[in-house]
Amino acid sequence: MVDVTTTSSDLYPVTRVADAREATAAAGIDALLLTPGPDLRYLTGYDALPLERLTCLVVPAEGEAFMVVPRLELPAAEHSPASRLGLEFVPWDETDDPYSLVARRIGPAATVGLADRMWAMQSLRFRAVMPGIEQVLAGSVLREMRMRKSPAEVAALREAGAAIDVVHALVPGLLKAGRTEREVGKDIAEAILAAGHATVDFVIVGSGPNGASPHHELSDRVIQAGEPVVVDIGGQMPSGYCSDSTRTYSVGEPPADFAAYYEVLRQAQDAACAAVRPGVSCESVDAAARQIIEDAGYGDRFIHRTGHGIGLETHEEPYIVSGNTEPLAPGFAFSVEPGIYLAGRHGARIEDILVCTETGGERLNNQPRDLVVV
Amino acid sequence: MVDVTTTSSDLYPVTRVADAREATAAAGIDALLLTPGPDLRYLTGYDALPLERLTCLVVPAEGEAFMVVPRLELPAAEHSPASRLGLEFVPWDETDDPYSLVARRIGPAATVGLADRMWAMQSLRFRAVMPGIEQVLAGSVLREMRMRKSPAEVAALREAGAAIDVVHALVPGLLKAGRTEREVGKDIAEAILAAGHATVDFVIVGSGPNGASPHHELSDRVIQAGEPVVVDIGGQMPSGYCSDSTRTYSVGEPPADFAAYYEVLRQAQDAACAAVRPGVSCESVDAAARQIIEDAGYGDRFIHRTGHGIGLETHEEPYIVSGNTEPLAPGFAFSVEPGIYLAGRHGARIEDILVCTETGGERLNNQPRDLVVV
Repeated sequence: MVDVTTTSSDLYPVTRVADAREATAAAGIDALLLTPGPDLRYLTGYDALPLERLTCLVVPAEGEAFMVVPRLELPAAEHSPASRLGLEFVPWDETDDPYSLVARRIGPAATVGLADRMWAMQSLRFRAVMPGIEQVLAGSVLREMRMRKSPAEVAALREAGAAIDVVHALVPGLLKAGRTEREVGKDIAEAILAAGHATVDFVIVGSGPNGASPHHELSDRVIQAGEPVVVDIGGQMPSGYCSDSTRTYSVGEPPADFAAYYEVLRQAQDAACAAVRPGVSCESVDAAARQIIEDAGYGDRFIHRTGHGIGLETHEEPYIVSGNTEPLAPGFAFSVEPGIYLAGRHGARIEDILVCTETGGERLNNQPRDLVVV
Repeated sequence: MVDVTTTSSDLYPVTRVADAREATAAAGIDALLLTPGPDLRYLTGYDALPLERLTCLVVPAEGEAFMVVPRLELPAAEHSPASRLGLEFVPWDETDDPYSLVARRIGPAATVGLADRMWAMQSLRFRAVMPGIEQVLAGSVLREMRMRKSPAEVAALREAGAAIDVVHALVPGLLKAGRTEREVGKDIAEAILAAGHATVDFVIVGSGPNGASPHHELSDRVIQAGEPVVVDIGGQMPSGYCSDSTRTYSVGEPPADFAAYYEVLRQAQDAACAAVRPGVSCESVDAAARQIIEDAGYGDRFIHRTGHGIGLETHEEPYIVSGNTEPLAPGFAFSVEPGIYLAGRHGARIEDILVCTETGGERLNNQPRDLVVV
C-alpha cells in the first residue's frame, strides 16, 4: 500500500507549483485558483476535503503561491504534503469572507484559471468579488502536465491495477445464480477496500439485460443461470491514483450469440491495445477497436468511446474517442474498454488500463480476458 | 436497508420538479440547470454518476422540464426513479455538443440557476454557449425546499443515524494501544459498509495530538495508552441520505485535564441540543454550546462552528454558526458538534444529528456520550 507520507516526494514532487506557475504565465493567465480536488492534489499532494468552506491554492503567474485555508483545516494542511512546499498558508475564520481575501491578494488581473471541478457555489462567488475578470479552466494549463505521468505515477497506477486485479480474481467465487447484483456488489466493495484501496469509487454488476446498459450500477435483480455479467469496478488508492477494470463473466454456459460477439470484442480490445505507441492519435486507438467490431456487424452496438485517461481521476484526459487527434506520448495512461451491447438481452465489455511507453503500451491489468464461465 | 426502487415515491415525490419550477419562476430565473449531484437527485431521485459527459436536468420557469443525457447513460436514466416523472430524455452522442443543445432548447433567457456543485468545466461551457446570460446558484431556489425535510426524509436520516450508531458501538473493540489510526480506520470503513451504507464518506481517527486537528483523517501514528481518540465517521445510505457522528474515546485512563474539559464539552453539546426548537435561530444554537465552553475558559479552543445541515449532502444548509439568523423550522436536520482542541496534545468532539420537530429537537444518534474508556 503506497503511503503518501513516505512517497510524497516521488509522487508529488515539490517542483510542480513552480512548473505550473511557468505554464500559467506562458498561457497569459494571471493566477490559478485551485480548490480541493485532483488539480490541487497534483500540485501539492494535499488531499484536502472538498467542503463548502473555501480551501484554495492560488498560483499567480508572478509572485509566490499561497493557500487560503479555513482555520480549522490549518493543522491538516500543515501536516499534509503541501507543507513541504514552503507555501504561505493564509487561514480564515468562520465569519470571514475568504473569496474577498483571495481577490485582494491577487489584485488587478484580467484572467484567472479555475480548477476544472470547482463547484459553482465557489466559481460564482469568485466572479462576484472579481467583476470583469475572465474565468478560464486551470485544465488548459495543467492538462499537459497531468497527462504525462512520471515514473512514480506509473508505478502508483501499476499498483492500483494490481489491486483491482486481486478483486477480479475473487469475482468468480462471488457470482452465483440466485444472488442479487446488490449482494455481489457489496462483497466486491469490501474486497476493493481489503485489496488496499482507500475508497470504492464504483461497482457495476450488470447481469443479463442490465449488462447492456454500460453504466448500470447495482440492482436487486437476481442473477440467473446462463447469464453473462459485466463487472466494472474501481477505487482510489491511498496514493491518490485510481483503478478501473472490467471483465465480463458468464454464470453457466452463455447463449451462443453472446459467445460469438464476446470473441469479436476480445479481438477488438487486443487490437486497440496493440495500436498504442507514441505518436499514434487517440482517435486511431478508438478506430482500431471500432473497425473490428464494425466489420463483424456490431458497429451500432458499440455505443461509447473506447476509453478515458486515468490518474488522480478515474476519467481525465486524454479521451480515446473519435475526433481526438492528440498524439499519445510516453506516460499517457488510459483505459481501453470496447463493449458490445444487445439492448434488452445482454452485453459485454473488456477493460484494461494501459500506459504508453517509449515503444508501445503496457497493460496494467492482467486478469484473463478469455470468457470466464463460473 | 432502504431500497430506492421501492421507496422512491415517498422519498422523492414526483411533485418536486413542479414545485421547483414554480419557485424558479417566482425567483425570476428562466431555468435551472442541474448536473448530477444532490440537487438533481433531490428533484428526481436519480443518482446519476458525476462525469465529464454532460447529464443535465433543465427546469424552465415556463414549459416542460427535460433531461439531457449521454446516449450511453440513457438506459440508466430510463431505469432510474427519474423515469417516473414523465420527463423527456434528450440523448446526445459522443461527438455532439450537449451544451449547445441545452442552449438552443432554452432559447432567449436572462438568468439561469446552476446546480451548486456544478463543475467549472461545465459552468464555463454553459457561459460560452449562453453569452450574456447571468448565472446564479440553483440553491437560491432549492434551499428552502431542501432544508425542510419531509417525514420520509427524516425517516431516512433516522435510519442513517442508527446505522452509524451500530459502527460506533463496535469502535471500543477496535481501539487498542499499539494499533495505528489507519488500521483502525480500515476496520471502521468496512463496518460502515456492513452496517448498510452504500459508501464510506469519511473516517477520522485522531489519536492524541491528531485529535486536536478537527479534520485530521488517518495516519500511521500508533495509538498510545492513555490517549484520547476522536472518531468522526459517516457515509451515504442507499437512500441517498447521509450519516455523520462523532464520539471521543480514551484508550486507558486519560490525562486529568482532558477528563475535565470533556465534561465541559458534554454539557455544551447537551445545552445546544436542548436549545433546538422551531423559531430559534441557528446562531443561538451555536451560542448555547459556545457560552458553556467560554465560561469554562476554553472559548479559544472551540475553533469551528457548532454544526451543519445534513441530508443528501453531509454538509448543506442550514449552518449552525454565528451570524446565521435563519430560524429553525420543523424538518430542519443538522449536526450539533462542539469540540475543544488543545493543539499539540489532544482534543475532543461530540456530534449528533438532530432534527427539529414541532416542539424541540430529536437526536438521531444515540450512542452514549459519557466518555468511554476502552
